[in-house]
Formats: sequence, C-alpha cells, structure tokens
Amino acid sequence: MPVGTQATVKAMSPEELREVKSQIILANTYHLYIRPGHELIGRMGGLHEFMRWPGPILTDSGGFQVFSLGELCKIKEEGVTFQSHLDGSYHCISPEVSIGIQEALGADIIMCFDECPPSTSDYAYVKKSMEMTTRWARRCKEAKKRDDQALFGIVQGGRFHDLREQSLRELREIGFDGYALGGLSVGEEKEVMYSVMECCEPLLPEDHPRYVMGIGTPEDLIEGIYRGYDMFDCVMPTRNARNGMLFTSTGSLNIKNSRYAEDRLPIDPACDCYVCRNYSRAYLRHLYRSGEILSSRFNTYHNLHYYLNLMESAREAIAQGAFAAFRREFYNKRQQNDQ
Amino acid sequence: MPVGTQATVKAMSPEELREVKSQIILANTYHLYIRPGHELIGRMGGLHEFMRWPGPILTDSGGFQVFSLGELCKIKEEGVTFQSHLDGSYHCISPEVSIGIQEALGADIIMCFDECPPSTSDYAYVKKSMEMTTRWARRCKEAKKRDDQALFGIVQGGRFHDLREQSLRELREIGFDGYALGGLSVGEEKEVMYSVMECCEPLLPEDHPRYVMGIGTPEDLIEGIYRGYDMFDCVMPTRNARNGMLFTSTGSLNIKNSRYAEDRLPIDPACDCYVCRNYSRAYLRHLYRSGEILSSRFNTYHNLHYYLNLMESAREAIAQGAFAAFRREFYNKRQQNDQ
Repeated sequence: MPVGTQATVKAMSPEELREVKSQIILANTYHLYIRPGHELIGRMGGLHEFMRWPGPILTDSGGFQVFSLGELCKIKEEGVTFQSHLDGSYHCISPEVSIGIQEALGADIIMCFDECPPSTSDYAYVKKSMEMTTRWARRCKEAKKRDDQALFGIVQGGRFHDLREQSLRELREIGFDGYALGGLSVGEEKEVMYSVMECCEPLLPEDHPRYVMGIGTPEDLIEGIYRGYDMFDCVMPTRNARNGMLFTSTGSLNIKNSRYAEDRLPIDPACDCYVCRNYSRAYLRHLYRSGEILSSRFNTYHNLHYYLNLMESAREAIAQGAFAAFRREFYNKRQQNDQ
Repeated sequence: MPVGTQATVKAMSPEELREVKSQIILANTYHLYIRPGHELIGRMGGLHEFMRWPGPILTDSGGFQVFSLGELCKIKEEGVTFQSHLDGSYHCISPEVSIGIQEALGADIIMCFDECPPSTSDYAYVKKSMEMTTRWARRCKEAKKRDDQALFGIVQGGRFHDLREQSLRELREIGFDGYALGGLSVGEEKEVMYSVMECCEPLLPEDHPRYVMGIGTPEDLIEGIYRGYDMFDCVMPTRNARNGMLFTSTGSLNIKNSRYAEDRLPIDPACDCYVCRNYSRAYLRHLYRSGEILSSRFNTYHNLHYYLNLMESAREAIAQGAFAAFRREFYNKRQQNDQ
C-alpha cells in the first residue's frame, strides 16, 4: 500500500491515488502525532475527512519511527520516551498511548505498538524485546475502545525462527484481526527475510490478513506473495520516484541518465498509465534535471501504477491458479532488460 | 497568462491548466535555451509536443532573464554576451539569435529581443537603450523566417512618457502583430506604471493585442484592463502559492498563519475550484508546514483558478458594458475583508 507520511501520499492527490487503483493507504502515526497532532486531526473529523481519502487507511503504531527518527531516550516496560526529531520536545509513547492516538486518527486498521530492534541485535536481546512486544500487544488489545477499527498484531523475533514462532503463537493466543511480520527489511540479507516469511507462514491463520511491513522491491512483493502473504507497504515506489528511479516491466531505469536526453519513448512502452500515454523519457529527464515538482508527480504516478498493477495482476493470476507461471514470466521479462 | 519557466507551469499538469481555463501559457526562452536547449526541443517536435500543451504558447525573448539572472558581461549593438547562471558558460544572444531560438521552440507568439534597463536608470541611458531596442526590433522582424508565429514588439522608455511615445511610434512604423509594454513592474511606483499605461494607450492600434509584461497583482490586472490592455503574464499566482500566499475574492491570506490551524472553511468560501470544493484551510496549512508537494499543487491550482476566473469575469463584464461596475465591486469585496 502507498505510504502517506504527512496525511498525504507524497505528490499525489486522492483522485490520482484512485486512478492508479490504490485500495488502501498507510499513514504514519509518529509523524501525525508530532505534527499536526492526533487531537487536532480527531477534532477535524479524523484522518479520512482531514485528508479527503474516503478509502481504507492503515496507521502504523509509531514504533518504527520512534526508533528510527526520534532521539531515543529510554525503552522501558511502560513504553518509550523520546525526543521529537522536529523540535526536541520530550514524549512518551506506551501501548495505551499508541492506541489512543490511532483511535483519534481513526484509521480502519490499526497496529500494535512494538519494539523493532536493529538487525544486528543478538539472540538474548531479540528474545527479551520480542517478549515485551508480546506483553505490549496484550496491553494494546485491552486499551482498544473503538470497535470499528481492526487491530493487527506484529510478529517480532528478528532472524531467529524459534523466536518468530514463539511470538506468533503467543499473539494468536491473544487473538488479532490480522497478523503482520515486523522487523524485516531492516538491513538483513534477502535469504534471512525469505526464511522468516517461510517459518511463520504455516502458523498464520488462513482466514486472517497476512501483512509484511516495510516491503519492498517488486521482487520482494512477488516473493512475499509466493510465500503466502497478502499485504505490503513501502516508501520505495514514491521515494525512488522522487529520486528519478522508475520501475518498468523489464526492470528499473534512472531517468537522469543522459541516454534518455532525446528518447521519445515513454518510461515503459508496455505501460498504459497516464504518464506513459503522454510523456517522453526526454521530457521527464528534463523535468527531473530542472527540479520541477511535475517530475516528482509524474514519476510517483508511474511508480505507484506499476506497483499496484503488479499486485492486481498477481491477484488475478492467483484467482486463475496461475501464479507460478506469472512469477516465471515476471523474472523472464526482467532478463530481457537491455536498458 | 501562467508562466512556464522550465517547459512546465510549476506544479501543474496540462490537464489542470485546462481545468482552470488557461488559454495561453508563457515559456521562458532563456531557461529553455540554457536547459535542455532549443535545438533539443526543436528536434523533439517543438515545445507544444515536448511538454504536451496543445494550446497557445508565448515565448519571451530571453532578454529579461539575461539581464536579471545571467552574469552580465556586455551589452553591445550586436547583442548581449553573458554567462549562464547554471554553469558559467559564455553565450551571446542577439536579436537574430533570439528569434532563431524562439522559432526552434515553436511558440505561437514570439517576442522581440529588448533591453530592459533598471528602473533607476536616467533619461539619457533609457533613451539610448530604447533606441537600440527599436533597432533590435527591426532586426527581429527581418530575422523572422516562420510565418506561423506572431511577432510582438516591446515598448521601452522607462518612466519617461516622451520616450515611451517615441518607442511605440517607431515600433508601429516597423509593424508588429501585437504590442507589449516592457520594463514595468521592475521597482517603480504604481503611479508611474499606471501613467505609462495611460500615455501609451491612445497610440496603440485598436485591432492588435495589447500586452503588459510581468504584471501583476489582481489590482494591477484590473487597473491594466481599465486602462485598455488585454494580456498580462506573471509568476505571482504560482510563486506566491508555493510560499503559502493565497488569493481570494476578499483579499489574500497566508495559509501558514496559526489562526487557520483548525479552520474547516475552504480557502475562499466564494470559490468553486477543486481545492475549495474539497479541502479545509486546516489541511492546507498542515500540508504547507510539512513541506508537502501537495501544498504547492493545491495552492497553485487555487491561485491560477482565481486569476483566470478574474480575467474571465472581466471579459464578461466588458462584453456587457459593465466593467466600471465590475471594478467597483472588485474593490468593495476587498474592503469587507476581515481576514
């Protein structure tokens, strides 16, 4: 799902998100808590009304940004004390506070507050952290008051299969509306990520959504789906777009490259999005080099279309029982890449 | 007309420009000459094709930016030698070169290359400069090869009525498809600007477009129309939008202001544009403070809608013989401004 940090998916209007068939967007609890504040958004009628996105919204718990952006002060059983990355002010987010913020924001799916330890953490630290995350998950479920929001649990446990299994077993005992794998794509090798997906999959309930957080490249999505997962979120399509990196059916291209200076082709001749139907690589390169807002807009539009179209095609392939062939074809097209 | 510096009106797609009823856009010859180069744009089929704007385009001559952005080296009878503001490379633009660039770009209306002296220049300098601009205008007309582009002459002469009259008389002797007042809104008092408009008006042919370059505020447009002028261009609606300054029927407002933090009203309750139909001042303030691209987009959309709607209403008032009442009403609404 496209990620909307500041109550907007960067550079995109809600109408454009619908055009590229976004089914759901993710909003960052940490960012909205810091600015403009969840209470203000609550008074303005909630996030859907505030940003005029009537479709589904998922909010993360704030945990990931607290650990990656905030000046970290202390992680305790009670919660996390940190300084705002914007003004240095002190804040404490506990499981109860996180749920309170997410209830004020009013997303359709909210997430348990978790600790996301660095990928280099040792077994003992990851085990201790995961067990606290599980206790936090129970507190999140107990703190939840609104019954119109789904609450997902987050499986932690790093690269350690037994810890992942313990985490997932204990979360299922508490019982959530969906289950997410957290703490992946944080620096570990691809094989580790895939093996964690594989070890968790058999333990996940068949009738609940399965979400891998913070993933990933087009290949990561295909491999995640292949391993039985349904939902993914990532800044990659939007952030890379703003940096000129564009996804195509045959791989990616960097629009800055001088080889595109007079290239009349669209980004991807196989793509039927608004940008590919109208603009040449030459024009998009010029917009990028000129630092134009339109560059971010067009690049983001195309990349989101690429990602969401990939997911739609995967769903269709699954419905037709043809996902294995779809996956082969996905990689075959990439090998023909001569860009 | 909206100004499109880098082959785009900043933050706007061509479709949005049509939605706000842009009839014509201005592209800056200097910027496109420096990057990506007029020859490249020519090879790509011209500016209309390159930027996918099928409507009318006007290119300025490059003179204004050469004097304001380039590191100026020397103004001679032959032309102007200057250094690029991007990479310091040396260039010479003469009347013939300017016309050649504008023919490669392929706009519908092209402008004579002129010198635009500072507003503080004395009579002797302005007279000498204006007389050279007239000789350059003749060379532009002679250099012009394409017969599918209209060429406008540019009246110079600073604040000095006799010089403005001399410039205009001599340009009319050469004969152009339209006449523009240049060298206004460059630091002089409003009264000076209006008096120059007034002194030139009786000397302008009734059946040719009359264009005041680089103007201006909504008040400037109303006063320009009142004094008999048809066309205007300015970065004000787009640049101010990116700085959070928004135009309304009752005056302007700055969306940064904390008074709008929880304001559910649209920018202008009297406006029916897409932004005013959908978004609150509170949300627009949040987008601005978060540095979001969507802030520039929405603010620009609204301001262009405001300007183009103002011009459309003025045209309708003129057609009904009711411009004097329209102008009174324009000022009355502003006096009710309680923002």
